[in-house]
Amino acid sequence: MSVKKNFYSDNVSGAAPEILEAIVAANAGDSAPYGADPGTERLPQRFAELFETEVEVYPVGTGTAANGLCASVIAAPYGAIYVSDAAHVHGSECGGAEFWSGGSARTVPLPVVDGKIAAADLARAVDEAGARSADVPPRAVSLTQATEVSTVYTPAEVKSIAEAAHARHLWVHMDGARFANAVARLGCTPAEASWKAGVDVLSFGATKNGALAAEAVVFFDRELAETMRYRRRRGGHLFSKMRFVSAQLEAFIAKDLWLRNARHANAMAQRVREGLARIPGVRFRSPTEINFVLVALPQAVWDGLVAEGYSFSRRGAPGEGVVRIACAFDTREEDVDALLATAHRYAGTREGADRPAPAMR
Amino acid sequence: MSVKKNFYSDNVSGAAPEILEAIVAANAGDSAPYGADPGTERLPQRFAELFETEVEVYPVGTGTAANGLCASVIAAPYGAIYVSDAAHVHGSECGGAEFWSGGSARTVPLPVVDGKIAAADLARAVDEAGARSADVPPRAVSLTQATEVSTVYTPAEVKSIAEAAHARHLWVHMDGARFANAVARLGCTPAEASWKAGVDVLSFGATKNGALAAEAVVFFDRELAETMRYRRRRGGHLFSKMRFVSAQLEAFIAKDLWLRNARHANAMAQRVREGLARIPGVRFRSPTEINFVLVALPQAVWDGLVAEGYSFSRRGAPGEGVVRIACAFDTREEDVDALLATAHRYAGTREGADRPAPAMR
Amino acid sequence: MSVKKNFYSDNVSGAAPEILEAIVAANAGDSAPYGADPGTERLPQRFAELFETEVEVYPVGTGTAANGLCASVIAAPYGAIYVSDAAHVHGSECGGAEFWSGGSARTVPLPVVDGKIAAADLARAVDEAGARSADVPPRAVSLTQATEVSTVYTPAEVKSIAEAAHARHLWVHMDGARFANAVARLGCTPAEASWKAGVDVLSFGATKNGALAAEAVVFFDRELAETMRYRRRRGGHLFSKMRFVSAQLEAFIAKDLWLRNARHANAMAQRVREGLARIPGVRFRSPTEINFVLVALPQAVWDGLVAEGYSFSRRGAPGEGVVRIACAFDTREEDVDALLATAHRYAGTREGADRPAPAMR
Amino acid sequence: MSVKKNFYSDNVSGAAPEILEAIVAANAGDSAPYGADPGTERLPQRFAELFETEVEVYPVGTGTAANGLCASVIAAPYGAIYVSDAAHVHGSECGGAEFWSGGSARTVPLPVVDGKIAAADLARAVDEAGARSADVPPRAVSLTQATEVSTVYTPAEVKSIAEAAHARHLWVHMDGARFANAVARLGCTPAEASWKAGVDVLSFGATKNGALAAEAVVFFDRELAETMRYRRRRGGHLFSKMRFVSAQLEAFIAKDLWLRNARHANAMAQRVREGLARIPGVRFRSPTEINFVLVALPQAVWDGLVAEGYSFSRRGAPGEGVVRIACAFDTREEDVDALLATAHRYAGTREGADRPAPAMR
Repeated sequence: MSVKKNFYSDNVSGAAPEILEAIVAANAGDSAPYGADPGTERLPQRFAELFETEVEVYPVGTGTAANGLCASVIAAPYGAIYVSDAAHVHGSECGGAEFWSGGSARTVPLPVVDGKIAAADLARAVDEAGARSADVPPRAVSLTQATEVSTVYTPAEVKSIAEAAHARHLWVHMDGARFANAVARLGCTPAEASWKAGVDVLSFGATKNGALAAEAVVFFDRELAETMRYRRRRGGHLFSKMRFVSAQLEAFIAKDLWLRNARHANAMAQRVREGLARIPGVRFRSPTEINFVLVALPQAVWDGLVAEGYSFSRRGAPGEGVVRIACAFDTREEDVDALLATAHRYAGTREGADRPAPAMR
Repeated sequence: MSVKKNFYSDNVSGAAPEILEAIVAANAGDSAPYGADPGTERLPQRFAELFETEVEVYPVGTGTAANGLCASVIAAPYGAIYVSDAAHVHGSECGGAEFWSGGSARTVPLPVVDGKIAAADLARAVDEAGARSADVPPRAVSLTQATEVSTVYTPAEVKSIAEAAHARHLWVHMDGARFANAVARLGCTPAEASWKAGVDVLSFGATKNGALAAEAVVFFDRELAETMRYRRRRGGHLFSKMRFVSAQLEAFIAKDLWLRNARHANAMAQRVREGLARIPGVRFRSPTEINFVLVALPQAVWDGLVAEGYSFSRRGAPGEGVVRIACAFDTREEDVDALLATAHRYAGTREGADRPAPAMR
Repeated sequence: MSVKKNFYSDNVSGAAPEILEAIVAANAGDSAPYGADPGTERLPQRFAELFETEVEVYPVGTGTAANGLCASVIAAPYGAIYVSDAAHVHGSECGGAEFWSGGSARTVPLPVVDGKIAAADLARAVDEAGARSADVPPRAVSLTQATEVSTVYTPAEVKSIAEAAHARHLWVHMDGARFANAVARLGCTPAEASWKAGVDVLSFGATKNGALAAEAVVFFDRELAETMRYRRRRGGHLFSKMRFVSAQLEAFIAKDLWLRNARHANAMAQRVREGLARIPGVRFRSPTEINFVLVALPQAVWDGLVAEGYSFSRRGAPGEGVVRIACAFDTREEDVDALLATAHRYAGTREGADRPAPAMR
Repeated sequence: MSVKKNFYSDNVSGAAPEILEAIVAANAGDSAPYGADPGTERLPQRFAELFETEVEVYPVGTGTAANGLCASVIAAPYGAIYVSDAAHVHGSECGGAEFWSGGSARTVPLPVVDGKIAAADLARAVDEAGARSADVPPRAVSLTQATEVSTVYTPAEVKSIAEAAHARHLWVHMDGARFANAVARLGCTPAEASWKAGVDVLSFGATKNGALAAEAVVFFDRELAETMRYRRRRGGHLFSKMRFVSAQLEAFIAKDLWLRNARHANAMAQRVREGLARIPGVRFRSPTEINFVLVALPQAVWDGLVAEGYSFSRRGAPGEGVVRIACAFDTREEDVDALLATAHRYAGTREGADRPAPAMR
């Protein structure tokens, strides 16, 4: 396998071997359609063990679907969902909350520090809106864990937000597209990171972390789930051959695969950060707590990496040179080292000079 | 492999070997997320070759998503979609058209003969509704091809409906969850069964016929597709690892896999029908033109098959004993023969008596 | 005032004098906008007295708005509303239930006898739908009182339907655009016709019966009203000068104006029916229990009335000659008598021959 | 008539005498329901004369309905509407755009100077969003004329925004709840303030300026109006006795009533401003170009006015003492003078000392 130069997203990777094996295994024999198969029926128990509590689990195909479905139930029958200004559900799902709710939900952005909203800001915004009869009534808050800027909420932070929310009769949703990376970072249990801190419903992500296409909506408050099976069906996420989605999820949480993958991806991002930190002029834009680095690169380094075939996702205003360097479950140490060597070489630092240029490999 | 006794649906089967191989192949190396991968970008050309015309192609995960997305564009900005009373989009998607359109679409059922609506009925209903200012304005017609009762529209039938529709400024959608079975039956080209007969947009199904989870919305009228990419994204059907969906579709239409699978499934259903026809008291409820048989079974046969572990989907009113016996790409002749032998045995006919009971195998 | 020849609808009349006086009186002095005025704030007490129980009252401008808003709350968060096949909310509001609910509601028609649905049919339909996971989940039933064919549900009939509904966790809505005519007919109290029979929320109509533009949504189950004030506002039915709507409603229910108007309109329809009954060939299509007559007229009578300038609303299939002859609060005995004389004259009956032709007046 | 102390809103006034007379006149005789009456049918011609071009006119009951209906057509089939941060449609209609569009529209706020958005900001925002496939696609811009802060767009300003919009295939909506005040201020023709400057559809307000409850949606681009009649009906704004709404609109634009009322209200606000400007410590928050003044009052003045029974709408952050002092068509010079005298008295200025206190009148 050649050196990986694609750090654009944790979605550029394929599926982990364990996931593909689970799909192939699920293919043997006939089965029941629409989620009546044994594998899907095992999931609630599997997730109950993982989260140490009874849950309802709804597998879906994408994180956008998970978030949109959650938005439709937490905003029901009608109301506002408070989110961070950078939240995927607010800015990157083409108006998904409005769509999934039939125009009954609106996402309302709150200011963030290091990608995280604060309980006090939520409380103030909800209280003000609640006092205005011309406003959309507050219903829910949605936290992204880990955040869009590579940070994580501590369980205490989640708890303070959830308390402010529950005191105002708001539901608490967690967009956990990178929940695995967050738990790996925090070193806490999945329960501590979710329902024990006050989360009512979780979008539990697998795709970014080794699945082919599988996410799960996990309800800790089961009353919330009442209309979910209908909503999922009409939204086209009740797969007729659901067993293939469920097999991915089962393999993902079995034998700690999800945490092993996440720990590895997080570690690779740390390695990237540490290597880049030694280049003069490099400016990090946020802490690197999970599997990607947000960083402004010197022009020469940026140009050099592009010239060598590296790809990243651009962030921030045009011209700032800010990129997101994303690692995944399958990013190897040698991939990171090659990246760093190239960066150092173009930066003209000693570290880069010592290594052979990637082009020579 | 033991005898297949599950005739509940063409969805009880897993994926065809060619499809699984395509998925495994797609897993090699990194790729671009959200459909910017080479495989997805090849699809328009592949489908253009298949349909002998320029098309826009949007892969999605389920037939319900394909139909819902189509409903949202053909009913836009607001209007009624005429369907058969038995249409999946009307009765089996939890109000999907209303959902995907944000309450702007309504499905209006028309009477059917052998599962098919008639151009004259469509014309009359549209003209009456158009004259009533208190009605939802007519916008589109949706045909299910093949139908929910194992019949197919001939290209001439499609054409007459499309002409009635277009004369009244309605779009023509075809729900082709079993388009493969229909084309296999008709022996015509895909083009003749679709755009040459006036279809503007097609839900092209693969899942029922050997894919794991893959359908494609194929636009022949590309103006209709304008908002599709946004709608698909917010509906959660822009998969981040889209290459795995596209790989299934590419393999499905390559080397006639889709038609070979469909022809086989159709043939197996014919074999079922011919075998059952020799049992006194068996009453077929519709022609068997594709891959399943709708049939009322004598009580003894019904009880016997259930006792032997066979499963079917029940249709019709309770107590009538009407079942759908569905064959799939992987139903074997020996599976059908075992089924028939069991049925005959319980019916007490000569044919069953001559064969060993399935339980002895 | 000349003879009234317009029997097209109970909406062709203007406002009753008492209503206009109330509007003029409401115009004096400044007031608070958006329903914070004293007249609007008096309404809950006024309606509580009328209905002998605590209620929440939301004035709106039209019956379609009242029904749509009710649909959005009774179907919330998502579900089916069972209605009669002839229900205004199903067939005459351009898909209002779907719209007001953002695609979350669907109206499902039930068969009717004399315009009324039966508890047993409701129970069966709900039970069947509840058993199908691909259906829209049942949430509510909506009764039109009085019905679209001039009949009324007795309190016992309402009660049996409400019991079937509540046993299945459905809300009960009453579309009371002609609630006044129904209560006038039944001779019961408003309470007996509504909440005592199990109605949870009522669209209380005034416009058809003498108001200019005023209806009220009356909640007997106040939990249902939770989101109503927000929904009404965004639907554009929180009038900035709400006092003018409220003044109409207050005058309408004061001093029995609503019942006096309704009794009169009902009596005029009876007079029409009795007069027409003496014409050979006249065929009534339903009982005449409230303020209009559904009747098939002999061709000569139909032609004659049209020639003399009479107008009616056509009902039934084209060519059947079925018309609705609607009386209102301001229809006079002499208007009815002139109509009848003209009809008899063209029918060639003795009764018509005895009277001067209307054209000579 | 006692002194008017209610400056809370231009909606606290009742209807102008000419409007009430028109309603009473419309009450004579029978008529056709649902807008088929002669008065309603005259409106397109009346508005064509007013605007010097062919138009389609849809009377509705409230400004929120007018804006919501416009949002639903300009955003169709799906897209973003750019608005000012202070726009009524964005912040004061309980999520109306999302509702009326069934979740297909989203309002996107732009920064403002003196309540007005700038063409360059619109262009930049649209171009950025257009380049992001995960965003809601841009469809329209909505201008509030006059603005929420008592300023007006000049025709040249409207034109520059409209050109930026049309160049990007966006529709241009004008929320003209106070269009009359704007035209009165500008001294231009209604045409120059609207379609000649590029406006495609206008919410033409009457209620704030003397009507009881009447607004009109005026389409200059008639293609946009295609679905309007259906949308208005299902939204409950096709009044059965529409003639009463139409009569208000006809009287409003006849004999320049609308401009006379607006000019007077504007002049009264100028008088308020000039009088307050002489009080030390008074700080105006925006120009006063139409009928209200946004002003921060010294604490003593604020307390005194409240003590004397005056009412205003509070604006700005709590504690800042910013109020909106709104004048209407029926605000008299002596009402303003009494207000000013009271303010000066509590401010301790000479002007107040010279006058008798209002309480003594």
